Amino acid sequence: MTQISYARKGEITPEMRAVAKQEGLSPEIIAKGVANGEIVITCNSKYSLKHPCGIGKGLRTKINANIGSSTDCCDIKLEKKKAQVAREAGADTIMDLSTGGDLRKFRKVIQETFAGPIGTVPIYQIATETVKSKGGIVFMTSNDIFKVIEEQAKDGVDFITVHCGVTREVFDRLCAQKRIMDIVSRGAAFLITWMLANKKENPLYEHFDRLLDIAYKYDVILSLGDGFRPGAIGDATDRAQIQELLILGELKERANKRGVQVMIEGPGHVPLNEVAMNIQLEKKICQGAPFYVLGPIVTDIAPGYDEITSAIGGAIAASAGADFLCYVTPAEHGGLPNIDEVRRGIIASKIAAHAGDIVKGIKGAKERDNELSKARKKLDWDRQTKLAIDPEILKKFRSERKPKMSEVCTMCGDYCAIKIVEDAIKKHK
Amino acid sequence: MTQISYARKGEITPEMRAVAKQEGLSPEIIAKGVANGEIVITCNSKYSLKHPCGIGKGLRTKINANIGSSTDCCDIKLEKKKAQVAREAGADTIMDLSTGGDLRKFRKVIQETFAGPIGTVPIYQIATETVKSKGGIVFMTSNDIFKVIEEQAKDGVDFITVHCGVTREVFDRLCAQKRIMDIVSRGAAFLITWMLANKKENPLYEHFDRLLDIAYKYDVILSLGDGFRPGAIGDATDRAQIQELLILGELKERANKRGVQVMIEGPGHVPLNEVAMNIQLEKKICQGAPFYVLGPIVTDIAPGYDEITSAIGGAIAASAGADFLCYVTPAEHGGLPNIDEVRRGIIASKIAAHAGDIVKGIKGAKERDNELSKARKKLDWDRQTKLAIDPEILKKFRSERKPKMSEVCTMCGDYCAIKIVEDAIKKHK
Repeated sequence: MTQISYARKGEITPEMRAVAKQEGLSPEIIAKGVANGEIVITCNSKYSLKHPCGIGKGLRTKINANIGSSTDCCDIKLEKKKAQVAREAGADTIMDLSTGGDLRKFRKVIQETFAGPIGTVPIYQIATETVKSKGGIVFMTSNDIFKVIEEQAKDGVDFITVHCGVTREVFDRLCAQKRIMDIVSRGAAFLITWMLANKKENPLYEHFDRLLDIAYKYDVILSLGDGFRPGAIGDATDRAQIQELLILGELKERANKRGVQVMIEGPGHVPLNEVAMNIQLEKKICQGAPFYVLGPIVTDIAPGYDEITSAIGGAIAASAGADFLCYVTPAEHGGLPNIDEVRRGIIASKIAAHAGDIVKGIKGAKERDNELSKARKKLDWDRQTKLAIDPEILKKFRSERKPKMSEVCTMCGDYCAIKIVEDAIKKHK
Repeated sequence: MTQISYARKGEITPEMRAVAKQEGLSPEIIAKGVANGEIVITCNSKYSLKHPCGIGKGLRTKINANIGSSTDCCDIKLEKKKAQVAREAGADTIMDLSTGGDLRKFRKVIQETFAGPIGTVPIYQIATETVKSKGGIVFMTSNDIFKVIEEQAKDGVDFITVHCGVTREVFDRLCAQKRIMDIVSRGAAFLITWMLANKKENPLYEHFDRLLDIAYKYDVILSLGDGFRPGAIGDATDRAQIQELLILGELKERANKRGVQVMIEGPGHVPLNEVAMNIQLEKKICQGAPFYVLGPIVTDIAPGYDEITSAIGGAIAASAGADFLCYVTPAEHGGLPNIDEVRRGIIASKIAAHAGDIVKGIKGAKERDNELSKARKKLDWDRQTKLAIDPEILKKFRSERKPKMSEVCTMCGDYCAIKIVEDAIKKHK
């Protein structure tokens, strides 16, 4: 039994109660959202009660950090450290996107270290193992695919990105139009390579029921990947992207009916004025399914600062109803991120999520801003530090830049507006 | 004669032609905007043709960097270096907000080093000199105020922030409501202190015509300050803020009639969903006057990362029609920024402005993204570097993180989606 199948029978599970408690909402609201497919709960049956995390309508916007090796950068200690940093910096979930080294080993180390909900893109393991064992992605079989998916599910992965919408139909539509970047999704790249060489349909689409069986068995959330996401703002909201979304909407319905939890993944590179409409469209086409967006980044010209370009898009997306933000690090479009970049990516994404939560009216969001501002007004630095998204940096500022008057800061020094106004009003009274 | 007085007589000045050339627009469009008060051109008569910069409707969104000393941090070499960095990183203008040390000396060094349009807040010099010479802000006179303003105008300052809307009326309205942060503007704090102690109206409001005479004589742009800007998102868009805006709208009309160029300054701390409406409101109330926003920052809880909170607000503001973004550095709310923080603030602000320019349809904005993405598709790293907002950081990534295959990056290594898809499509054809 899965969370959605319990919910649809009107049963409230311990996981739903746990999520309700975390969010300060009633278990009934959570159960209703899960039943409708508007909320998912990470709870692989192996780990169900360890770290249930609710993602969806009415809940705090969650953020994910992508970590993992590549063929060029394959250091298990480094990835373990990234998982630690993700935990400390407050990522709600992580995805292990490793493609270099012993992938199962990387996954286990990352999973144990983070000790929270974990996602993967199984096609990475399938493709890289096929390359090693058979000499090329094109030799992959359907059985290879589902074997690895089941292995990962058994290992306790909570959500998996599956590019089920990468179909011949969408690919033909892509070829019939012009795009700047074509396909930028690694998962889609693997599948398209296989599909073209074998002249076959995507097995994840063709054998979707087999995928549903596995997902149901372990209550793994299917995160329906956007293989045709725009990789340039000039490609945003085009026919290929929206065609894939339509297919994901159909699959979402099938999955929910079968008792399988589903999220939808979204773009990508999107100009600022198309972000909100992309959220609206997903919510309509996919019947309110939780929307998991990568960024989105609102300009292509800032490699090295994509934690900022994605915080802009992410904040707008969250405020428009996106439920789950995938962080983007400063290193995106330049290389695999280091520890500090992982940390910066998480903080930027948390800022975006919180800015959105203020607009969504999430319980406690605006209140935290007000509390911090009250502390700021009182020049109470300890309390400001406690309430800040990154307490360490404020402590660092305070110790590095000591003002002569301890209550102010070095920005205005003697001429602190807060202090001056307070004094003036006091005298006036 | 000033730019606006020429424009209203139908004359096109060399400064207007220079701005038209920079923006790729016709001189007639610029002249029309200047005549309407929808565009301003920085052109203190002393420096008029050295660095005219157009700010307003239809033009590229400009960004300003605040630098300058405080009583706690008063190092002229450091501020000189910040002015250099501002120039190199591409700030369109700088404001010298010094309040510590020999202010005139700081201003001259900063002005000469930046060698571009410069703004100031003259009340800082007036207040700090009065404290030194007379023992308190409350002993300041109207003559002191206008003497310093004229001195700065004569020294070639292009725009000055003048808190003319800090009136008794607005202050009373502020006191009649509840605010978390009251007043966070240093200029307003000085003026209110003086007004309460002396039981008088703000001289910058009462003797506005005297201010106009000076501004007209040197063609200094009046940047009408928002002394009652919200300093907490909980205070945003309240009656005090909007009352001040109404007064600024009246003053803008008077100034334009007198042949004086005007910008309006805007908040501050604003929740994401109130940013666009604040821009719309300013444009209505102030008859399309160029809007110069500080940030805005969309959450209070991220001290240490306010380049990000303000990039979010700034991007939305720019896309909604804000013309001029004042950067916010990571150090805001923690101390005076160092060199690196000034640089980060400028880049974040440039990202926000550019994201807005894509939406505004500014000539060349979206095209630059497309060019960079085309280079990315071709895995042409040199061209990506050339087109990036910060070429240095991409160079650094490339040299620090060398992939085995030189054309890809270490993020995906052998499994670069761009490369895989290209190969697959080539074989397919």
